Amino acid sequence: MRQVAIVGAGMTRFAKHLDRSMKDLTREAVDACLASSGVDKNRLEAAAVGNAMAGLLTGQECIRGQVVLRDMGIGGIPVINTENACASAGTAFHLAWLYVASGLYDTVLAVGMEKLFHRDKSRSFAALGSAIDVELMEQTLADMNEATSDGAGTSRSLFMDFYAQLARDHMDTYGTTAEHYAKIAAKNHTHGSLNPHAQFQTPRSPQEVLDAPLIADPLTRLMCSPIGDGAAAVVLTSADTARQYTSQPVYVRASAVCSGQDHQPHEPGISQRAAQQAYEAAGIGPQDLDVAEIHDASAPAELMLYEELGLCPTGDGGRLIDEGVTALGGRLPVNPSGGLLAKGHPVGATGVAQIAEIFWQLRGQADKRQVTGAKVGLTENGGGMLRGEAAAVTVHILSV
Amino acid sequence: MRQVAIVGAGMTRFAKHLDRSMKDLTREAVDACLASSGVDKNRLEAAAVGNAMAGLLTGQECIRGQVVLRDMGIGGIPVINTENACASAGTAFHLAWLYVASGLYDTVLAVGMEKLFHRDKSRSFAALGSAIDVELMEQTLADMNEATSDGAGTSRSLFMDFYAQLARDHMDTYGTTAEHYAKIAAKNHTHGSLNPHAQFQTPRSPQEVLDAPLIADPLTRLMCSPIGDGAAAVVLTSADTARQYTSQPVYVRASAVCSGQDHQPHEPGISQRAAQQAYEAAGIGPQDLDVAEIHDASAPAELMLYEELGLCPTGDGGRLIDEGVTALGGRLPVNPSGGLLAKGHPVGATGVAQIAEIFWQLRGQADKRQVTGAKVGLTENGGGMLRGEAAAVTVHILSV
Repeated sequence: MRQVAIVGAGMTRFAKHLDRSMKDLTREAVDACLASSGVDKNRLEAAAVGNAMAGLLTGQECIRGQVVLRDMGIGGIPVINTENACASAGTAFHLAWLYVASGLYDTVLAVGMEKLFHRDKSRSFAALGSAIDVELMEQTLADMNEATSDGAGTSRSLFMDFYAQLARDHMDTYGTTAEHYAKIAAKNHTHGSLNPHAQFQTPRSPQEVLDAPLIADPLTRLMCSPIGDGAAAVVLTSADTARQYTSQPVYVRASAVCSGQDHQPHEPGISQRAAQQAYEAAGIGPQDLDVAEIHDASAPAELMLYEELGLCPTGDGGRLIDEGVTALGGRLPVNPSGGLLAKGHPVGATGVAQIAEIFWQLRGQADKRQVTGAKVGLTENGGGMLRGEAAAVTVHILSV
Repeated sequence: MRQVAIVGAGMTRFAKHLDRSMKDLTREAVDACLASSGVDKNRLEAAAVGNAMAGLLTGQECIRGQVVLRDMGIGGIPVINTENACASAGTAFHLAWLYVASGLYDTVLAVGMEKLFHRDKSRSFAALGSAIDVELMEQTLADMNEATSDGAGTSRSLFMDFYAQLARDHMDTYGTTAEHYAKIAAKNHTHGSLNPHAQFQTPRSPQEVLDAPLIADPLTRLMCSPIGDGAAAVVLTSADTARQYTSQPVYVRASAVCSGQDHQPHEPGISQRAAQQAYEAAGIGPQDLDVAEIHDASAPAELMLYEELGLCPTGDGGRLIDEGVTALGGRLPVNPSGGLLAKGHPVGATGVAQIAEIFWQLRGQADKRQVTGAKVGLTENGGGMLRGEAAAVTVHILSV
């Protein structure tokens, strides 16, 4: 396996783009990525494209990548269409990395893209319901409390009820409080206010987060990631080729993908296993990280991921946010981009957008949200739900 | 890149399985695959899963692979969900091969699966329409003759009208006749009568094919692949590991994936480019092949693929079928399984089923349809339609 480098990144602003197509958004991200790298589109030897929801929202299945790439004059090369719910783009990046690491191709594009807003909002929420076992959904819904205060529909309810239950369990077990979750959301919204790509750019205080409408106790609206549209792209090359394009390559030190499995409560869950694999492959531990972009689909998810990724001992997530460790200016800023909560979460785009953010952070190109002197970063991108945990998690470790 | 071997294969019968779920079908294929190989499911280190239509037919998107594999006790490992329309399973096999060839994993499962029959038949046909650029579909439909004699709906019409036009062009240019296409269909239906996995097991004469209801001139119903349900699985290992399981490994000599690109009529199309790449990578030419499974979505497609894959010179496809070269007993039997026309075409399952057939042929395990002494085989699996040709084509070359 060869060393792989990222040499360029681009993304759209994540937002409600009702008037723009997925082709249009993806073109902007890919153009920005290629322009920033100096890689001509004719040099691309393969592409891996992540998308989760276009099939159910627009009827575009099967050849989603070819449809958008051909529209911008990229053809002929292998195009791998992949989906893993909210981890679709992390999976696409993994496949692009695998192509280069294997030696089969030298210059490969990874794309994440999603058009989630639809004039019929119920259709957006219904599409999110495809990220679980739909055959079991009826039974699951019968087993859970469907009622939510935002009327957003059963699928959204399913995910946020799930997070709310985990949040309450953590509170019961470790004394975590709603204020801890509010501090995380406030941190990410404040980070987002420094990021021109973020869907929400309004700084928030913990009190504002707590005062927002309740979605599912203890989650308020500002603790939940929003619906969004957007695209992100990065271009990968072998370490040797990278020198042709940049004096600042960012290396992929590890790329891990896991799916869920049956386990006892005391045994590692999917995120912990994915992180362990990545740390081992990279020879880098959590103590070595300078910055991380992780899957804060809800504020409690970020807190629990602190523990699952080994950023603090189990049960200490609340302490970590209390001490400001994970805020900009802290020892290990988490989600300096604003994360899913503020940057936004066009599901099939998120994983590559996380990679793009760490790429910029490690090159010192993150402007107002720059983590000073960051050399090593981690991304964690989770997706779907099956038997009580995520169905897919990808963890990547990058370094200069 | 390491040498990769296939050590086991399994598939369901392709058929109308209205009473069986995709989980149920896939379990049968994977169980048969693992049992035939001696590989325990706990030895699997990753899985690549191809499916094209479940999202639009059942609402199951995103984590299709995890949903079916977890149901049979396979979890924890990376599960890559991929789609490339009718080439979804060929793409899944390519990714499984890449995992092993790269050295990242040693024992990997490739699955293709599809439940295409639905009690509401119009839904099945509508789903097939997702394999094109849906944004352009309205315009395309306006440009083409939508009328068909089978009332199967616009999507089926779109594909079969497309093939019919290509068939007429070939007749005009090279003097090919409807009888040539009928001979190909008759050959494949006769091969299918020898295959217990085939959806149709009735031998047909060229005259019966010509007498079948007309779908789009010159295509009769027996020249068009049917709707079907089914699943197929193969397990791949490194060549070193293969020896633990079998004295008859089948080696993957080349794995090529292409997408379409703009080109002049005299320049190679997508299938020709994919084949050239595979022949070059394998150091094997068309003259070295003993058997092939190719994407006869319609009978004319098989004839044109003879030429595109270099099995005969351009324009000589009719001669090849006239001389019996591609029938069982001929010099290079094509689609001994019955092909898509008779074995059937559950779209996301087809590519892995082709690999399974060549695996059995090269090991001498194909019973009544055995190609005597076959040592080298090729599969070609195409999918989708974009700007007048397939959107994705995979070509694999296997040998003992």
